[in-house]
Formats: sequence, structure tokens, C-alpha cells
Amino acid sequence: MLRLNDGQLLESLDRLAGIGAIEGGGCARLALSDEDRAGRDLVVGWMKELGLRLQVDAIGNVVGVRPGTEDLPPVMTGSHIDTVRTGGRYDGNYGVLAGLEVVRALNDAGVKTRRPVAVAFFTNEEGARFQPDMMGSLVYAGGMGLNEAYAATDKDGRSVGDELRRIGYLGPARPGAIRPHAFVELHIEQGPILDEEKVRIGVVESVQGISWTEYGVNGVSNHAGTTPMRLRRDAGYLAASVSVFARALALEMGGDQVATVGTMGFRPNLINVVPNRAVFTVDLRNTDEEKLKHAEARVAAHIAEVAAAERVEVEARVLARFEPVIFDAGLVDRVEHHARALGLGTRRMPSGAGHDAQMMQRLCPTAMIFVPSVDGLSHNVKEHTEPADLVAGAQVLLNLMVELAGET
Amino acid sequence: MLRLNDGQLLESLDRLAGIGAIEGGGCARLALSDEDRAGRDLVVGWMKELGLRLQVDAIGNVVGVRPGTEDLPPVMTGSHIDTVRTGGRYDGNYGVLAGLEVVRALNDAGVKTRRPVAVAFFTNEEGARFQPDMMGSLVYAGGMGLNEAYAATDKDGRSVGDELRRIGYLGPARPGAIRPHAFVELHIEQGPILDEEKVRIGVVESVQGISWTEYGVNGVSNHAGTTPMRLRRDAGYLAASVSVFARALALEMGGDQVATVGTMGFRPNLINVVPNRAVFTVDLRNTDEEKLKHAEARVAAHIAEVAAAERVEVEARVLARFEPVIFDAGLVDRVEHHARALGLGTRRMPSGAGHDAQMMQRLCPTAMIFVPSVDGLSHNVKEHTEPADLVAGAQVLLNLMVELAGET
Repeated sequence: MLRLNDGQLLESLDRLAGIGAIEGGGCARLALSDEDRAGRDLVVGWMKELGLRLQVDAIGNVVGVRPGTEDLPPVMTGSHIDTVRTGGRYDGNYGVLAGLEVVRALNDAGVKTRRPVAVAFFTNEEGARFQPDMMGSLVYAGGMGLNEAYAATDKDGRSVGDELRRIGYLGPARPGAIRPHAFVELHIEQGPILDEEKVRIGVVESVQGISWTEYGVNGVSNHAGTTPMRLRRDAGYLAASVSVFARALALEMGGDQVATVGTMGFRPNLINVVPNRAVFTVDLRNTDEEKLKHAEARVAAHIAEVAAAERVEVEARVLARFEPVIFDAGLVDRVEHHARALGLGTRRMPSGAGHDAQMMQRLCPTAMIFVPSVDGLSHNVKEHTEPADLVAGAQVLLNLMVELAGET
Repeated sequence: MLRLNDGQLLESLDRLAGIGAIEGGGCARLALSDEDRAGRDLVVGWMKELGLRLQVDAIGNVVGVRPGTEDLPPVMTGSHIDTVRTGGRYDGNYGVLAGLEVVRALNDAGVKTRRPVAVAFFTNEEGARFQPDMMGSLVYAGGMGLNEAYAATDKDGRSVGDELRRIGYLGPARPGAIRPHAFVELHIEQGPILDEEKVRIGVVESVQGISWTEYGVNGVSNHAGTTPMRLRRDAGYLAASVSVFARALALEMGGDQVATVGTMGFRPNLINVVPNRAVFTVDLRNTDEEKLKHAEARVAAHIAEVAAAERVEVEARVLARFEPVIFDAGLVDRVEHHARALGLGTRRMPSGAGHDAQMMQRLCPTAMIFVPSVDGLSHNVKEHTEPADLVAGAQVLLNLMVELAGET
């Protein structure tokens, strides 16, 4: 069996985490920012050192290919290196850098594989700056056109197209030009289940469907002291009521339904003025498309009801909508097999977060490997995974990739 | 009977509204801003043209005095000329400029009064930039020390003391040096009652007590997709729940209880991250101190309950707290008398908003005169009062001031 270079993996994670480092040990490398560019340049440099053949495509996805002995579709692994504004150091980065360690292990052992082995990082997985999230892999899988992606703008009006050009990552390759034989993504769980149950490898069978909607509410601003409650048209009240409703709805529905109001803004945002404007977002997720639709309908009904009672107007804008994804059953079995062969405990589970792998499943058999997140923290500077778990997950990836690529 | 110069009053209102004018016809002259300075300079110029003797005190209150035939405490009127960020053109300004028209009417008719007649505008009535609101009149009435007032800072860390000096309105007079014989404030209602009932003069008997508290909530930021609802420590959820609770509480308590969550901010304020921080304010008002205390206790109990269930920490900071104020019964009767003598319909009512007059009641017999606000809009660029009502209210003020000052 090939052995992973443990120290190198941990050192690479440390070095990448130094770019866009923020207080508390986390990272801020928003997609297509200067920090993202610096992170990309570092990883691209490493890819070149490993002898990978690089392709940068027109949405900024970077794929490095280690040729096989036969001209076949490659076995691909990868993830993303952009982060949220208060991100951790493992989310995404771990899967990309572990992929490089797969290549290094093959190189160091002088192993030739039948199929090429490819390592990719996809643009704007997080969606923290530009919506939708998983943009790079979505375009790669043919789910979104380039022009639509280019037109997405951040809060300051800067577009994906302009920012890709600015940071020098609008490449010549057609997204999806390399159609893999199989895709495997290694990722931290970003949730508490493996950590709570002391299980070291999550065998990911599916990804929750995601529904992101931004609501803008128009009411009437008025004096907080003199306006009787019955006459108010309080935009902030509607916004707040949705947060409370979403919590109750998720608890009522149970299962893996989650609901989050993560952003909220009032105008004029003064102590003694009834808000005339509120903007907020709702994030709904479920592994069952019908249940997700039900949750969406319930939130919409609540908003319509409160809007009528409060006599405020609400506009809704869908920022992202992805149906749940079921991974390739055969490949999922192989993840489980290789983890168990290493003596690691496993647990089959859905992914609560969206991942590039869910887009790749449209193109080829795909699966994911999870390792524990301590206390389930993610999108948080305190995000942490024990080094032993990072190494174990990467070894599962290595063994699976070797099997899929076929030693010669 | 002396007649008010109607055209001059309306023209002065127009000219003052031109300073800090914002889209939609409103004004933004936050206390001690450059716009506030420009407004002050304009009004001070008018005071000088009218021959008033000016006193600027150490908190920036400006008092213009028209001497009487005897050296007695003056009869004072006035209000404020600062506005909220999205203010209207009448709130405060109307009372100050009508006061100048009282002086002009006396001057034009060559009337001498026994007592001096004084017109004042007080610093930072709105509290939109520096808390507490009604700061100038509070200091004038001895309810707050100068150093405490100077130390208040805005969101950018600039202090009242520094800003007073910067705009040139840190004057030499001791606040409260002129202790009036009586104080009368003319103001728009800022609520819908007079407009709805088609009554032209509100005879204000009392001012609601005001309780302003800012809450900061510390939770844990986490991934919105992977964190089960039961494990969340969502700062935003608590904040939202208070808005919903406050509404229900005010409706349940009824009477004149009002409750407003006017400001709200989440951190990190991202769609797919459970907020780890929320800051929001609660504005509670009632004319009955015991009921106001009850409302405060209920909100505090709700917050404690949700904080425990959600395992978040909450710190509370009182931004302002004023007990309800009852105006001088004899003076309130005189307001009613003069309005009726002019054939104007009257209604006795409390004030839902805080006013400088409530501070002056600590020093001398005080009362207020209200005129209708169309649709009750205030703290809103669409704030409007019909010219005929502006003139009617000012005439009531003139007649009352003449009576109080005593024609010779």
C-alpha cells in the first residue's frame, strides 16, 4: 500500500491557511478577491512542482492532470480553496491539498496508473461573495452558462467576469472539457455528527437540497413613540417573524430539515423609527426534494400572511436552488470498503452542506469522504479537525484513487 | 389680538428645510453634524435680526431673549432643530420657528411685555446620533452633568464635547442659567390621532415614559447546512424573537403601550452561517410608569428565557430611560382655552414621543401644543402638516405667550 506523506499534508494546510489569515486561526479568502488569487497562485505553484499538466478554464476552475499509461478519462479528486468571510482552514482546502498528496505519493513511489489522475479546485464554492454557491463546478457540469455566471455581482457591484479577469484566472479551457471517469471529494464534515459519535470516516451517500432566497420588505417608517401598534407597517417585524417561524418549522418538520436566517438588515436602522425596509435571507435544506418544497411553501405562506396583516410589500429573489443529490452507490461502497480496510470506523450519512461533488455527479460517478469537525464548527475561525483524522481521510482517498486509476 | 405673519412662518420652514435636504422632501441634520451647524447658523442669524439677546450654553443650547419691561424670569418657548437621518421638515423646527414668529408679531406691533419672551432650541433632541435623546434640555434641567454629556460618542467614536467644539457651539453660558417662568412647546403630533379625528389642536397633558435598551447577543457561528437545529446557538434567532415578542406584548398590554425594534445587525451576516452576534434595540413607551416597568420586565424575562434555551449570552445597555411626565394642569388648561377661543377643535392627549418640554417641566410650569401630522407620518421624509394647521398652532402659541408674558 502507498503511504501518504503526513507531514507534507499538514504543512501545506498550514501554508495555505497563512494566506488571508484572520484573527483566531481562520481564513478570509472570498472568491476572486486578492486573497483568493494569492491562494490560487500558491496551489498552482505546488501543482507545477508536482509535474501536473494545468488547465485553467473560463470560469477559473483549475485542473492539474497526472497522465496515465492509457489515454482514458481521468480519475479526479478536488474541492475548493475559497472561503467565507470568517472561514476555517480546512473547509475545501483539505480536499484540494490531500489530492496533491495523492499525486505526491504516486510520484514518490514511481507508480504509473492506467488512467490519468486529476486534482481540481473549483471557483466560488462558498457563494459568500457571489451567488450561487458552487458556481465553478456548476458551470463545469453544464448547469449554468458562462455569461450568466460572469454577470453575477457582489454587494459592491463587481462582477464575476471582471474579477476573474482582474485576478488573472479567466482561462482558455472550456469548463467541463475534461470529463472524469469518476470524482471523489474529501472534505471535513462541517457538522457535529462524526465528532459526537467518535466515528472517523463519514461515507457520504447524498447531499441535501439547498434553497436560498433573499427577501426585501417595504413598509412605512414612522415614529416609534407615536404610532399605535395597529397602524404600523413594520418591515423589520416581518423579517424577524420569518426567523422565528423558520426555527419552529424546522423543529416541527424534524428529520434533517434545517432553516437559517443568516443575514438581516433594517433601514433606516434607528432606535426610534419603525423600519420601512428590511432585507434578509432564508437558507432551507433537506435531503428530500418534496420536503424541501414543503418547507419553501410554508415559509412563503408565512410571509404572505404576515405581509397582508402588516400591509407591507415583499419581493423574493432566489439566490440558489439545488435539488438533493444521490451519489453513485457503487462508488459510495468503495469509500466504505477502503475506510474499513484501514480499520477506521465508518458512518453512512448525508451532507448537510453543498459541495462541488454534487455538481460532478451530473458528469460521472461521484462520492465523498468526510472526516470529523471538532464540535461541528465550520464557517468559523475555530473550525478544527485532528491531524490524525486529516491523515486518515487522505489515506482513504489515496487508496480509493489508486484503485480507480488502476495500477499498471 | 396680535396676528401671526403666516407667510413668514411658512417661508422660514422652507428655508430651514433646505439645509440637509434629502430626497423626498425631508431633512438629515443629525445633531452636531455640519448640517446641524448650518441650520443653527441660519436660525441664530434670524434671532439676531429679530433683536433677540443670544445665549449659547455649554451644551450648545441657544436661547434668544426679548427683554420685558420688568426684570422677571422669561416666558419661554422652543424646541429643537436637529433631525433623525431620514427626518421630516416640521419635527422640532416648527416649534422653534413659530417661536420666532411670536417675537416678530410682538416686534411688528410694537408690543411691550411685562416678562421677557425667550425662544430656545435645544441640542440633540433626537438622540439619533448621540444617546440619550433630549440631551440638551436634560442638561438644561439639571438631569445630566456636562461631562457625562460630553463623553457620549457616536458610532464612529466622535464625542459630543469634541463635536460641539468643532461646530463652534460650545458656548460660555451655564445650562439652565435662565430659569423660565413658564415653558410652552409647539410641535407636530408625529402620530395619527389628530389627523384621523380631524381635530386641529392637541392639548398635551403628559409625555410617555421612554425606555431604550441596546442588546448585544453572543452565540456561535456555524454552518447553516450541517448544524442540527438542536445544537444551534443562534444570536440572530434571539434578536428576531424579541421583535416578535415585543409586538405581541404591546398588543397584549394595550392602552398606549408601544414597543419597537428599530435597529438590528447580524454578524457575520452571511446567508449560510448561523449568526454568532446580533445587536438590536428595544424602544418601549407608556404614560404609566408601572406599566412601563412591567413591559421592561417582560422583555427582559423573554430574553433571559430564550438566551438560556439557545445557550447564548446577552448584554444589555440602557441608552435612555425617562419616566412619564405630567404637564402643569393650569398651563394645559390655558392651551385648551386659547385654542377654543380661536374656534379650533381640541383633544386632550398624551405625547407618544419624547420632547424637550418634558425636561423643562422639571424647572417650571410647562405645556405642549400639538398640530396634526398627515397620516401620522414622522421621522419620515413624507412628514407633513397642512399650512393652515401650522398657522393655527402658531397663533395659539402666540396668544398664550402674550397672556403669560403680560402686555403692559
